[in-house]
This record gives sequence, structure tokens and C-alpha cells, in this order.
Amino acid sequence: MSDQNQEQNFKDEEELKGLRNEIDRLDTEILNLISQRAQCAMRVAEVKLAADPENAVFYRPEREAQVLNRIMERNPGPLGNEDMARLFREIMSACLALEKPLEVAYLGPEGTFTQQAAKKHFGQWVKSKPMPAIDEVFREVEAGAVQYGVVPIENSTEGVVNHTLDTFISSNIHICGEVELRIHQHLMTGPNTRRDKITRIYSHQQSLAQCRKWLDAHMPQAERIAVNSNAEAARRVQGEWNSAAIAGELASELYGLEIVETKIEDNPDNSTRFLIIGREEVGASGGDKTSLVVSMRNEPGALYNLLKPFKDFGVDMTRLESRPSPSGNWTYVFFIDFVGHIDEKNVQDALAAIKETAVEVKVLGSYPKGVL
Amino acid sequence: MSDQNQEQNFKDEEELKGLRNEIDRLDTEILNLISQRAQCAMRVAEVKLAADPENAVFYRPEREAQVLNRIMERNPGPLGNEDMARLFREIMSACLALEKPLEVAYLGPEGTFTQQAAKKHFGQWVKSKPMPAIDEVFREVEAGAVQYGVVPIENSTEGVVNHTLDTFISSNIHICGEVELRIHQHLMTGPNTRRDKITRIYSHQQSLAQCRKWLDAHMPQAERIAVNSNAEAARRVQGEWNSAAIAGELASELYGLEIVETKIEDNPDNSTRFLIIGREEVGASGGDKTSLVVSMRNEPGALYNLLKPFKDFGVDMTRLESRPSPSGNWTYVFFIDFVGHIDEKNVQDALAAIKETAVEVKVLGSYPKGVL
Repeated sequence: MSDQNQEQNFKDEEELKGLRNEIDRLDTEILNLISQRAQCAMRVAEVKLAADPENAVFYRPEREAQVLNRIMERNPGPLGNEDMARLFREIMSACLALEKPLEVAYLGPEGTFTQQAAKKHFGQWVKSKPMPAIDEVFREVEAGAVQYGVVPIENSTEGVVNHTLDTFISSNIHICGEVELRIHQHLMTGPNTRRDKITRIYSHQQSLAQCRKWLDAHMPQAERIAVNSNAEAARRVQGEWNSAAIAGELASELYGLEIVETKIEDNPDNSTRFLIIGREEVGASGGDKTSLVVSMRNEPGALYNLLKPFKDFGVDMTRLESRPSPSGNWTYVFFIDFVGHIDEKNVQDALAAIKETAVEVKVLGSYPKGVL
Repeated sequence: MSDQNQEQNFKDEEELKGLRNEIDRLDTEILNLISQRAQCAMRVAEVKLAADPENAVFYRPEREAQVLNRIMERNPGPLGNEDMARLFREIMSACLALEKPLEVAYLGPEGTFTQQAAKKHFGQWVKSKPMPAIDEVFREVEAGAVQYGVVPIENSTEGVVNHTLDTFISSNIHICGEVELRIHQHLMTGPNTRRDKITRIYSHQQSLAQCRKWLDAHMPQAERIAVNSNAEAARRVQGEWNSAAIAGELASELYGLEIVETKIEDNPDNSTRFLIIGREEVGASGGDKTSLVVSMRNEPGALYNLLKPFKDFGVDMTRLESRPSPSGNWTYVFFIDFVGHIDEKNVQDALAAIKETAVEVKVLGSYPKGVL
């Protein structure tokens, strides 16, 4: 090694040592600040408990959304906003668990994605409890056995969505928040299958549809077989030669399959939306959405009458779904999402106008827009 | 509401407002410090890359263990040491991912526990890749396709352990760390089964054995049926009436079963140990363990000769497993774990003494003791 190299090595070593000392110093400060934060959180809980021992609420969705939005606004980098918000989510989750770990029910069977959504929203410290059906998630929340529930609302399997919507109609539960998960589809095979030997591809019909263009371009010869769920597809492929499944990462992990091509969905923004449900209404966070169910008689001009107030009062609608009413008799039910909180003046004005023509208006909840 | 109550309410509101402002102030400081920490971590990576563009190593297990141990020593509370260490694990995980996300292979199929161990050890930012078999995890690491691998070493299913041990004998891979997961067994049923109607209980033989006393006391009438894995047991119970499975929480989540009795294992410290494997040797962290494989001829006094040097040089053995050598011919292979790093004098003296009587001594690795 040359003298010059040695000198450079020495300099590098010195700099690395300095950087490590600096990191240690920063860590000590971070440690103390997180501890102070936890102290404050405990004191908040004490004050709330003393004021109302029976009904003290420790987790406030609007406050949490504000904290995360503030963090993302002020984040100087180099960590990305989403990474930084994830870290703060965990810090808040740990502080909250000090007082009383949050318990959350979620749709279990096909839904390891729903559990993923619960963890994404509440952090790793949450206690999550799987339920076999959507209405049981609702019942668990209504009965007070858990504080919150997590259910899918816009999913690639259409049936799930309707079931969640129907359950809202007959329930007194509020929507307290929303989570989005970006969901990617991968092509995966067992260990004995070579990519160029794939003759059959299994997946849920919806997933096959979502990857149609890619399949047409890259696997035109392979037979496409629709099965009940992507997990089912992955399980089948485990034992078959020359077969592949289209499914999410979790399924490849669960069934030990190898991902041979990632992100083959035609629309790269493929995502699933979940709702957080709870017993309490949520205050305004400053960046909120509201969900409504409106029943309208099936008569000329009904939809126009429904939509006009939104335009008149400058309320920005983000989603509209119509369904025949479960009670029959020629009424229609509309599920509507719009930007704004029920406390805001223009929202109240729009709702008052809708109530003039609607058979029934039910506010499912105002809640902070999904942060992550 | 009385005047006194109103006054108290007002005081509470004021205090809560003050606490929230204090939390916001602390969050801003934490945000800036984490960002500075990320800057330092990026600079460390730059220096390392400039010095050795080909072989720069960003993740140092001994350094990470030191950081976490230091945090736990200095933790003033109220957050527990383990909670605080988990938060710092995530902070380090996010900082490391800035430069280059760590890629880790792990044993896939039955092992969602192994993935859990990988996340526990490397944090949520790690990219984990499931492999269908233990030797494929080794191969993936040897080939450099991933930086580290995670394999179970002491598991309730005995076969797995032996397979991991055997793979070490024929490999040049080093042990870089260890993780322990506390694993609880729960009794779970499908939605249609009442607890007092359970007539059959499925589980892996080892799990049935681990819960024998509880079963004798609480379910003496139920038939116990051993199946291939706890996951298999959970899957069967899904479709059967009057049946229950004994399995971990993950299985209940995966198959949408309801846990009717938690933690029924007779020994509440039931845990599984995993090893982190990699290509590089790990420096001393100050709290290390070393794993060895020693082959001894099967002759009188062999075991005594093997154990004496540990006693003579004050080396604390924590585990000893003996197995017939895969090469046959009347030799035995011993797997030994002890406290200390290969760099320490007494460890070197003990090894030198063992080498005098052993057929072969292979150091599998010195690595930091599991922190969490």
C-alpha cells in the first residue's frame, strides 16, 4: 500500500470515528426527547382519566393526522416524508401503548392485507384481532370489545365493498379514518418451474384482468385459470409443475414461491382502500373527508337534485356509488365521499339542501384524509 | 354543571393544550435530530464507498448491537427498554435504507415466524425474500444475491434445527447474529364451534406435547390429532365442526380462526431462536457469543477432553449438541455455543487446547448476543 493510500485510509478512519461519535450523541438526544414525549403522553392520559374515568379517549385520529402532517411539512430530509411519518407513527404507537395498548379488530381470512392496513395506520404496538366477517368487525367495535375496526372498502374483489357499505346502513358506527395500501401483483412459481416453461397461470379473476396487457404481451401462450383468491392460486402452484400464480408479495412469502416478475399490473397505481371504524365522532384536523349515505326516491331528476347542492356550495365530491336500497320500494341509496368536515359551514349548507329532497341522509363520519 | 366543575374543566383544557404544544415542540426536535442522524449515516456510506467501491459494507452487526445496548442502558423511561430499542431499530433501519436497502433471505414456507424474526432483527425497512429451503437461504447468501439470511436454529420442530446445523458443516457462511422470538400457543376454533363442543384438537406433535398439561386439565375428553404443522392444523379446523387447533397467533389471523384460550403452553418461556448468517466475520461488540463445530473421534474421554479447556480458561458454554458425523467413520460432531468473541485471549487459549485433541474445529462465527 502506498504512503498516499495509507494517509487516505487514516483520514477516512478518523472521519468515520467522528461520524460515529456524532451519531451516538444524536442518539442520546433522540432517546431523551422520545422519553420526554412519552412522559407528556402519560400526563395527557392522567388528566383525561381524572376528568372522566369511564369514557376517557386516549387516541384521537384528528390529532394524530395533524402531528403526521406537521412532521411531513417540516421534514428537512434526507429521509423521505413517508419514511419519516412511518417513524413517528411508531413513536406515537409506542407512547400510546404505555397507557393502554390500542385494540383493533380487522377482517381476518383473506385479508392479511387488512391486517397490514391496521399496522400501517396504528403502528406496530397495536393489538390486532382477526374477525371472520365484516359484520363481526362492526359488532366487535359496537360492543366495545375493541376501540377500532379496520375493513376494506374499495377492493379488487367487488363483493367485499358492497358488504361493508351494507353494514354501515344498519349500524351506528362512525368512520374515523382511511388507509390506502398500494398493492402490486407479481408472477410467481414453485422451485421446480422454469419461467419459459409456464403453461398455466392461476389467479383471482380480478387480478388476471388487472394484468391482462402484460399477460398478452409476455405470456400469450399460457392458459389463464381463475380461482377463488390469489392465496388459493399461490397454494395450488406450490404443488404443480409448469404453473405460475399472480398474487401479492405476502402470498409468495406464505407459500414459499419465487417471484419471477414483479409488478405486472397494467395500472401501476393499483391500490386498496380501508376504513377505520369506531364509536366516537372525530373532530376536524384541517384536512378531512366526509362519507354519507343518502336514500333518494327513484324519480326523474333525483340524481340532479342530489348533486346540485355540492356544486352550489363548493363541496368537492370524491366518490359516488349508487345501489338499490336494501329496503326495496323504489328508493336508491347513494354512498358519497367529499372533501371537508361536517363542522364546516359550506358542508352544513350542502347537507341542509340535500335533506330537502332526500328520503334519508346519514353521515357515516368525518375523518382525516389518509396521511401515509 | 357546578362552577367548581367548570373551573376544573377549564384548568384541564389549559393543561392539555400546554402538553400538546410541548409534544409538538419535542416532535420538531426529534424530527431534526433524526434527519441529522440520517445525514451522518449517508456520509458514513460515502466515505466507505470512496475507500472501497466494490466491497463497502454498510451494515455492521456489532455496531448496531452496541448502539442498541447503549440506548437500553441510558433509557430513562417511561418507555421500556425493549420498546425503546425497537424504535431505534426502526430509525436505524430507515437510515440504512436511504443508502441501500438491506436484502435478506429467509426460510419461507412454514416460517412466517422466520420472517417475523427477520423484521425484528433488521427493522421494517429490510427487503425480505422467502426461500423454500434452508440450504437455499445459505446458497442465496453465499452467491451474494442478498447480504444476510435468517434461519431457525432451535425450533419446536426438531428436524429444522438439524438441517440448519448440517448445512453449516458444508458451508463457508458465518453466523452474524441471533434473534429470539417468544412463541405462544393458542387454542383456536372456526366460527361455528362452541368451546364446550370441541371433540378433536389438531396440532403439530411437538405443540401437542408442549400443551399436554393444559390439555389434560381442561380438555381431557378431546381427541388429539398430530398433523404436519400448526398451520396445517389451523387450515383443517377452518372447514370442520367441533374441532380446534393449537397454533400461533399468525395462524389464527391467516385462517380467520377465533382464539378461545390464549397461551396454553405448559412452559411460558417457549421461544424459538433464529440465526443471522452472512459472508463477513463480525467484530467484537463487547457482549458476544461464539458458535463452533468440533469433530471428535468416538473414543473414551472424548467428551471430557472437549469440555476441559472451557473450564480451564473460564469460557462459559451455553449450549452443546452432539450428532453422529455425516461423514460416518466413528467420529462425532459437536455444536457448541459459548460466551465471548474469538478475538478474546481466553477464547483463543481454549480453542488452541481443543484443537490438540479434536479431529477438526470450525468456528461458525462470533456475533453479538441477541439484543431484543
